[in-house]
Amino acid sequence: MIEYRNLKIALLGAGSVGSRVAQLLLEHGDELASRVGAGLELVGIAVRDVDAERHVSLPRELFTTDAESLILSADIVIELMGGIEPARSYILEALNSGADVVTGNKALLALHGTELFAAAEQVGAQLYYEAAAGGAIPIIRPLRDSLAGDRVKRILGIVNGTTNFILDRMDVDGDTLEGALATATALGYAEADPTADIEGFDAAQKAAILARLAFHSAVPVEAVHREGITSITADQVERARRAGYVVKLLAICERVVDPVTGEEGISARVHPALVSRLHPLAAVHGAKNAVFVEAEAAGDLMFYGAGAGGLETASAVLGDLVSAARRHVAGGPGVGESFTAYLPVVDIGKVQTRYQITLEVVDATGVLATIAGIFSDHDVSVETLEQSSAAAAGPAASPATVAETATLVIVTHRASEQALAATVASLAGNTAVARVTSVMRVEGA
Amino acid sequence: MIEYRNLKIALLGAGSVGSRVAQLLLEHGDELASRVGAGLELVGIAVRDVDAERHVSLPRELFTTDAESLILSADIVIELMGGIEPARSYILEALNSGADVVTGNKALLALHGTELFAAAEQVGAQLYYEAAAGGAIPIIRPLRDSLAGDRVKRILGIVNGTTNFILDRMDVDGDTLEGALATATALGYAEADPTADIEGFDAAQKAAILARLAFHSAVPVEAVHREGITSITADQVERARRAGYVVKLLAICERVVDPVTGEEGISARVHPALVSRLHPLAAVHGAKNAVFVEAEAAGDLMFYGAGAGGLETASAVLGDLVSAARRHVAGGPGVGESFTAYLPVVDIGKVQTRYQITLEVVDATGVLATIAGIFSDHDVSVETLEQSSAAAAGPAASPATVAETATLVIVTHRASEQALAATVASLAGNTAVARVTSVMRVEGA
Repeated sequence: MIEYRNLKIALLGAGSVGSRVAQLLLEHGDELASRVGAGLELVGIAVRDVDAERHVSLPRELFTTDAESLILSADIVIELMGGIEPARSYILEALNSGADVVTGNKALLALHGTELFAAAEQVGAQLYYEAAAGGAIPIIRPLRDSLAGDRVKRILGIVNGTTNFILDRMDVDGDTLEGALATATALGYAEADPTADIEGFDAAQKAAILARLAFHSAVPVEAVHREGITSITADQVERARRAGYVVKLLAICERVVDPVTGEEGISARVHPALVSRLHPLAAVHGAKNAVFVEAEAAGDLMFYGAGAGGLETASAVLGDLVSAARRHVAGGPGVGESFTAYLPVVDIGKVQTRYQITLEVVDATGVLATIAGIFSDHDVSVETLEQSSAAAAGPAASPATVAETATLVIVTHRASEQALAATVASLAGNTAVARVTSVMRVEGA
Repeated sequence: MIEYRNLKIALLGAGSVGSRVAQLLLEHGDELASRVGAGLELVGIAVRDVDAERHVSLPRELFTTDAESLILSADIVIELMGGIEPARSYILEALNSGADVVTGNKALLALHGTELFAAAEQVGAQLYYEAAAGGAIPIIRPLRDSLAGDRVKRILGIVNGTTNFILDRMDVDGDTLEGALATATALGYAEADPTADIEGFDAAQKAAILARLAFHSAVPVEAVHREGITSITADQVERARRAGYVVKLLAICERVVDPVTGEEGISARVHPALVSRLHPLAAVHGAKNAVFVEAEAAGDLMFYGAGAGGLETASAVLGDLVSAARRHVAGGPGVGESFTAYLPVVDIGKVQTRYQITLEVVDATGVLATIAGIFSDHDVSVETLEQSSAAAAGPAASPATVAETATLVIVTHRASEQALAATVASLAGNTAVARVTSVMRVEGA
């Protein structure tokens, strides 16, 4: 074996991803060294409790509780401890000491990305974060570099494996949300407290990261509109299935143009949506993730793979480590992030999309005209309208309502959230409408 | 608008991709400049004939026939002229003058990649080539960087849009090869001389590039085993369909282990193969491309999009241009390619895969035992065997043979090409076998 000079690697955190990174680095160190042209020496792993149980067995002498000393001894620091503090301070210390940093900390990047990238650029260091969105799926480099000469129009991402698993079970097995969540928990796809996943917080963080990259603009995570999947019913999923759709929780990052001023802006939002079964995203099953990108020149692209998992995510971290190490060997400063397009994030009310609205209406003459009138009053154009007796409307319909009401399923053309909300409010207040059963956005047309 | 210093960009070639690159660069120059932090000034376009008709209208004063002077004036040279010479000499001149180079020239990279990468590394320049495989699909950076810390096990790529269009037509519409090729030509998916596509030369060049990246080893294009789609019949496609498969032309790059010595090597090959309809590659229709990557840690990944087209490929070229420009602004040398794993490319005879063999056999007792014996004599293990009367075997069976022969469809377990070839030779020579109708590899299990 060729002898190289060694680069010193510090690892912060030894959870499911961190322990796998350490293990693979120790096992494949020689192979990675030959790719880099320098040895990759894991000099220590900073943890809170040296004696805690790990996912994989690692040499005890690598562990330390003294993260600060470890950081100062390293050429490259890998932060996999998660959370905001002390992760943020540690990364800043590492960058300021001239080390490159690899992180998979999406919460931190979504909240403090601008500060961290600025710190890296200041000292000519580089911050790598392929693991922060899409797990093992290479999506950061494609957006940051491969598509940097193009104009991204829209990203539709299935970026949370837990919710995709749950919605897929509901779709394929006709399971309820509670049943599918219980299965996800039993199989280890959902955590004991699933809030971050099912309420869309995890997906919103990834949306903020992807939107910043795609549109070269700072996108604060607070500006990402967020709806989880907790209100999705088995009935909605079944209705969607019959209409040729599947329900997916999407992270959507979209370039939008104000129809009045012509000004460009960004919409970043996370919500459940109906996706046509013919769309490539409809075929993303189980806990898999996929990011569908529509670009002006490149057309439609899709990136598919495992969005989570300790071993899978470790692949992304080690890819970043090799990149950082290669740059160290070549010499020269890091290449900064670009977010000087300064596009504003627009309010969800201004976003335009298509909608499917399911209503229970009084089964009487003139009702259709009333309903149609409400849509046209709000300038929301109807694409299709389907009427069926309530009996065919699925398990939610009670026998008592069969004779008196009918079910209307209306799909609109593109309309603003604002106009749609006003339409739905009018519908709900009209005596012809017994119930607004469901309002779902339709994406990926 | 902020004033930046300008980077001088030279373009060699103004064909379908080159003219689009020039157009987009002129249209979106300001936007790209803000991403880079420097202006991108297209200083000239070298062509053979200044007055030739172009795909898009470009300022006449940009054109020149003096490529050498243009190259020497540039910070970044974009080579999109294609072919081996003078492209190779021009790229070497550019690199030696200290310019970074962006190319989409797969033929050149497949043949002279090692020389060109070495020249770049020598002077600290960088050679970018995202457009050389997969068109608009970001696949080079994911393999080169994102997966650089992982071990790729196998790549299955649909990397030629023309042949995928033809095979898709045969599958979906039951068309013949000739009919589908005529449609492809009429729609502009196939060139007047389709040899490079349908004989697999184009796919073999991409396989060489992908295998080099995935396995960090030099892979000469001559070492890529190549079979085109010209012998694929409507009958084979129909049989495949009924058995739950679809026929795809695959570029396969695989890490293989010699069963005797335990030594690692590479198989790089292009041939038609049966792919299960449940595999994500089966859903890649029309002229779309997709690269399916199996890695040890990351698991299964897929990259999907437009594999060709002037505008689409221009996106990849401009992404490379922005990367090169960002590096110029940051300063510092380029990061070299890694191909020091030195894995040998093994002969196709040593490759193991599964096979589907279709035979017409004499319909008599004892024949099944004879056939089974031939397989076991060659240590090829049978996974499934299906017998049907010749009448059910599809349009190729003539009425005269109905009474006398039966059709056997045999799917094997993994076996070496060598053992399979010997088995097929024995089958063909046996009096019980009227005809070996088809031998197809089965991939992506």
